[in-house]
Amino acid sequence: MKAVVARAGRLVCEEIADLEPGPGQVLVKTLCCGVCGSDLHALHHLDRMVDMTRRANNGASALDATKDVVFGHEFSAEILDFGPGAERRLKAGARVVSMPIMMDASGPVTIGYSNVFPGGYAERMVLQEALLLEVPNGLSARQAAMTEPFAVGAHAAGKADFSEPSAALVVGCGPVGLAVIAALKARGYGPVMAADFSPARRRMAERLGADVIIDPAQESPHSRWRDLGVAVTGLEQTIARMSGQVVRRAIIFECVGVPGMLQKLIDAAPSGAQIVVAGVCMETDAIEPFLAIAKQIDLRFVLGYTPEEFAQTLSDIAEGRIDVAPVITSAVGLEGVAGAFEALADPESQVKVVVEPAL
Amino acid sequence: MKAVVARAGRLVCEEIADLEPGPGQVLVKTLCCGVCGSDLHALHHLDRMVDMTRRANNGASALDATKDVVFGHEFSAEILDFGPGAERRLKAGARVVSMPIMMDASGPVTIGYSNVFPGGYAERMVLQEALLLEVPNGLSARQAAMTEPFAVGAHAAGKADFSEPSAALVVGCGPVGLAVIAALKARGYGPVMAADFSPARRRMAERLGADVIIDPAQESPHSRWRDLGVAVTGLEQTIARMSGQVVRRAIIFECVGVPGMLQKLIDAAPSGAQIVVAGVCMETDAIEPFLAIAKQIDLRFVLGYTPEEFAQTLSDIAEGRIDVAPVITSAVGLEGVAGAFEALADPESQVKVVVEPAL
Repeated sequence: MKAVVARAGRLVCEEIADLEPGPGQVLVKTLCCGVCGSDLHALHHLDRMVDMTRRANNGASALDATKDVVFGHEFSAEILDFGPGAERRLKAGARVVSMPIMMDASGPVTIGYSNVFPGGYAERMVLQEALLLEVPNGLSARQAAMTEPFAVGAHAAGKADFSEPSAALVVGCGPVGLAVIAALKARGYGPVMAADFSPARRRMAERLGADVIIDPAQESPHSRWRDLGVAVTGLEQTIARMSGQVVRRAIIFECVGVPGMLQKLIDAAPSGAQIVVAGVCMETDAIEPFLAIAKQIDLRFVLGYTPEEFAQTLSDIAEGRIDVAPVITSAVGLEGVAGAFEALADPESQVKVVVEPAL
Repeated sequence: MKAVVARAGRLVCEEIADLEPGPGQVLVKTLCCGVCGSDLHALHHLDRMVDMTRRANNGASALDATKDVVFGHEFSAEILDFGPGAERRLKAGARVVSMPIMMDASGPVTIGYSNVFPGGYAERMVLQEALLLEVPNGLSARQAAMTEPFAVGAHAAGKADFSEPSAALVVGCGPVGLAVIAALKARGYGPVMAADFSPARRRMAERLGADVIIDPAQESPHSRWRDLGVAVTGLEQTIARMSGQVVRRAIIFECVGVPGMLQKLIDAAPSGAQIVVAGVCMETDAIEPFLAIAKQIDLRFVLGYTPEEFAQTLSDIAEGRIDVAPVITSAVGLEGVAGAFEALADPESQVKVVVEPAL
């Protein structure tokens, strides 16, 4: 079958061996697969990614950075065939999405970051039958492929503590930030302020429902907290509470993932703010613990999503609570993937590029 | 009156102006005042402390580092006289403790870190009448003075989320770590593992009720998580949950406050751990955000305590739920404060030194 192979920092579209579904697995035809920022990073820094994952997992890693990988973990697909002993709850021809996970003898393996299981930048994949979710009628394969990246937003929103009156700031309106905005609005959390230097991304934040849109080149989003009912200093908070006012808590979503951003947020954040770190910063970063202590900052690092959040996101998209259409800026065939990786460097031209092997 | 004045990095015992209680204030005789690690730091780095506090408070600071300060914010005292318009809920002669806060025209000021309000390293202080708590009968002035440092532990424990089954690790058994251990045990949270390089401090951790005591020179406390029912990796957690086992969550209290400790904990912590940062690190620190993300670490920076936690701690001490006696290792008069600051550099000889102006 045809696939886009990542090999030594380059993407090569070529024929690779056909797949055979094993026990509990299904063979699917890839309908659509989103290009994720992590794939862009992995193409050039896969060795570091593997090293860090190994450090985080007590030495274990399922991936060998020196061997071929077929990326792609944001996919929708159509069932072609079943492996031995399949349950066949869904029939061949059914359109499905799935968390990009395979159960290997050694534990779970991420489809798209594996030397064994090719991801969605290929004509076909094998998936775990037990994880398949049927795509509801009326939802296009392209929209359904957005379940995975938007589930990331649902997870970040779910990790924040919205039990008290709150106001949210989403810093960075790339795919992760936009998914967070969508999840916050789908759950009724807000008001939601969104900040990005790119006019195109600010427009998307608005289409996804952000209530206040900030160009950080013009003004700091932190100058707007009081407008949203957030008391900024500890003293302001004490006085507001003593006079019986509702004081909103600041919940900040870091969706940029570059060194320095965390401390910038700690410096500017209101006292007592929660910062949910959803941007994946791969480099060493410096912080001033004393400032985080003085403000009693609550820093929650998040990754991935739960099966429940994944299923909820599919339903949010299918039932119109989340409109994913604005974020999909172009579609390419397998031959176009290498070019799409280059185009994604420019935030004005692209947000989410999808790969459709049939194109 | 006699006081120990911090001036240009030195402690000088000398006569300073007598105090006059203003409206809403009371004049008290200092009975006992603990020496805090922050005082040791402030003596040599007051300018940095003021700078950082200003950065954390939108430019505001009540303290001029170039002027005299009388330290001491962990005190018990006896009421001598009242300012104009006092409520006189308590009578002269009553023994009291108080959060070390004065309400100034510009906002709250910390007693002991103020150029205006001398702290407990002085024969007398003025306190805010509204904040006074009477010391219950039978509680010595020395024990009562431990309310403040132990309230710090109550606050750190209270900021952790113990709503799920959990196991705690207290890293560093100085006064902050010991106060955390005491608060965890008083609230019934545990099991509590405690780690410190100092044999004397490990003995105190044991006396305060820690269930497992670790010498990090011999073994890593992180090698013991499984003994306490904590599944360490994400995979272990998933498998344990799928098989219906109770999985305890790791809650780690960082009570050391030196650069590098945070990343050391992120590196070694179980997946999904909460880290409550109670150790005050005054220097820039480096972290690897990717590792915190991969483990979904929840990092809560904490400071101080609420009025409720302060009152609860006084009651915990008075009613025997917290035994503060083990931590008080010596008492000095005002003339002995400068020497006590030097002695506290050695963790084997001293934990908490108290100052009693009557000595």
